[in-house]
Amino acid sequence: MTEQIAWIAVDWGTSNLRAWGIGPAGAVVATAGSDQGMGKLAPQEFPAALMAVANQLALPDEPVDVVICGMAGARQGWLEAPYLEAPTDLIALGQGAVHPNMPDERLRVSILPGVCQREGGENVMRGEETQLLGLAVTAPTYAGLVCMPGTHSKWARLEGTRIAGFSTAMTGELFELLKTHSVLRHSLAGDVNGPERDGGFLAGAQDGLDEPEKLLGQLFEVRASALLSGRTPDWCAGYLSGLLIGTEIAANRNQIGTDPVPLIGSATLCALYARVLAMTGAAGRVVDSTEVVLAGLKAARASIA
Amino acid sequence: MTEQIAWIAVDWGTSNLRAWGIGPAGAVVATAGSDQGMGKLAPQEFPAALMAVANQLALPDEPVDVVICGMAGARQGWLEAPYLEAPTDLIALGQGAVHPNMPDERLRVSILPGVCQREGGENVMRGEETQLLGLAVTAPTYAGLVCMPGTHSKWARLEGTRIAGFSTAMTGELFELLKTHSVLRHSLAGDVNGPERDGGFLAGAQDGLDEPEKLLGQLFEVRASALLSGRTPDWCAGYLSGLLIGTEIAANRNQIGTDPVPLIGSATLCALYARVLAMTGAAGRVVDSTEVVLAGLKAARASIA
Repeated sequence: MTEQIAWIAVDWGTSNLRAWGIGPAGAVVATAGSDQGMGKLAPQEFPAALMAVANQLALPDEPVDVVICGMAGARQGWLEAPYLEAPTDLIALGQGAVHPNMPDERLRVSILPGVCQREGGENVMRGEETQLLGLAVTAPTYAGLVCMPGTHSKWARLEGTRIAGFSTAMTGELFELLKTHSVLRHSLAGDVNGPERDGGFLAGAQDGLDEPEKLLGQLFEVRASALLSGRTPDWCAGYLSGLLIGTEIAANRNQIGTDPVPLIGSATLCALYARVLAMTGAAGRVVDSTEVVLAGLKAARASIA
Repeated sequence: MTEQIAWIAVDWGTSNLRAWGIGPAGAVVATAGSDQGMGKLAPQEFPAALMAVANQLALPDEPVDVVICGMAGARQGWLEAPYLEAPTDLIALGQGAVHPNMPDERLRVSILPGVCQREGGENVMRGEETQLLGLAVTAPTYAGLVCMPGTHSKWARLEGTRIAGFSTAMTGELFELLKTHSVLRHSLAGDVNGPERDGGFLAGAQDGLDEPEKLLGQLFEVRASALLSGRTPDWCAGYLSGLLIGTEIAANRNQIGTDPVPLIGSATLCALYARVLAMTGAAGRVVDSTEVVLAGLKAARASIA
């Protein structure tokens, strides 16, 4: 017999959605997901997409809360949840939730807001704020930078549950663009995961850390080193990855304190960031991203009006 | 009656080729061109592509020299012309020329080498070295940086006809990639040449000059400013262009002396670079790129074996 579900936690991204059935004691009792990300849906298609996932969780007869973070609340999503403005205390995240129309009354839906920044560089996030809240409630004394590597890496300054400010680096997207569409693709065509990837990564990371202001020039050296030194696709891919991550970390280096920097993201990517942080004399601490998003959704649920 | 041709100058790029018929007194007496760039041709297709252009110039009966710079000498071109290695005196550029098989004996073909750099950052150029030689012979006392804006901008350190070293910035290619394929394309969709482009350009250039090490982060602010401040596509396009050019110039700023920096490239692009150079307190001097490539081909011809 399936364990009873008290509420449903949902992380609704651009390309997919993940849902967890949470039991009365707060434990995950069932998981579900689909590829119906925000990018594939018109507003009126969200209820059916949610219902399809909720039905995988064996719904009880009585209505349950569904707490959603991420792109469902974007302007082009299901229903816009206006941004909170940083600096702000994330503990009140639920107060900014919006409640879209849900034809099936067994689901009481709340969509959490994202966070924007207007002073000190305009910026936006949707989804990461919930992970940050989850990190903050599980490590309430932490004050400092949090790094969230990915397509658009976020660097947030956290003080307990308060987000002081943040920035976004287009590192992951730029890697994919350069690999796929730029002149560098010629140097990365082949087995990019061969034995020389690691050496390339370390060389690129060092160059990025040493001269982050020269990124536009160092990118071309990938091509030149393939032409002149016969660098292999795996070395070139490693170099490009290291160069971009090194440049990203260098730009944030002067704000890194003595505590290890929490890293929230895919395990592979977090391990790479931790290596480059170590090259600067700092340290990274890999955080389980599912754990923090669940902790964040739970904490936000408490403040939903 | 068409004036007599003494030799033919050719700039063979990746996407097209340009040819000039040069009279006995050294003046251009006819021009021709085609879209048969290196990128479209297999090695055995170059002779016919050259002949098609040469026939537009009204060839004399006796054989004429054809001096070619650019991508025809690349490994994937007509016949590889191995790189000279910087630092080197470009006055001897012709000594490195190669002579591919040309079925029609009326054309005696020489392809000039490019220049590579192995120490101080691996790098390559093909075509720009001939423009640099042309600049040097027309302004023989100049010593300092030369900037060649474009898809892959080159920055060369010239001392008379000697090239001391150079770097390449992927500025133009990155602008196109980001505009076409990245998340920023949403913010640049529409009229990118409207009245706000100029203001965006100046704001982006200032940000690039001020914090070139933060490029990965500043790129995303294009998107955030469209979402939060309703920035228009023309403003966003201007900002992105200014940000990239400002970042490129900042990386070379400490090598700029008191003389105006010669700028070789498209008139539009050179004007933008001159504006950003002026923001740093330096100056640019726009050089006619056709004049210098012709002067370079002429000077190189004198040293062909």
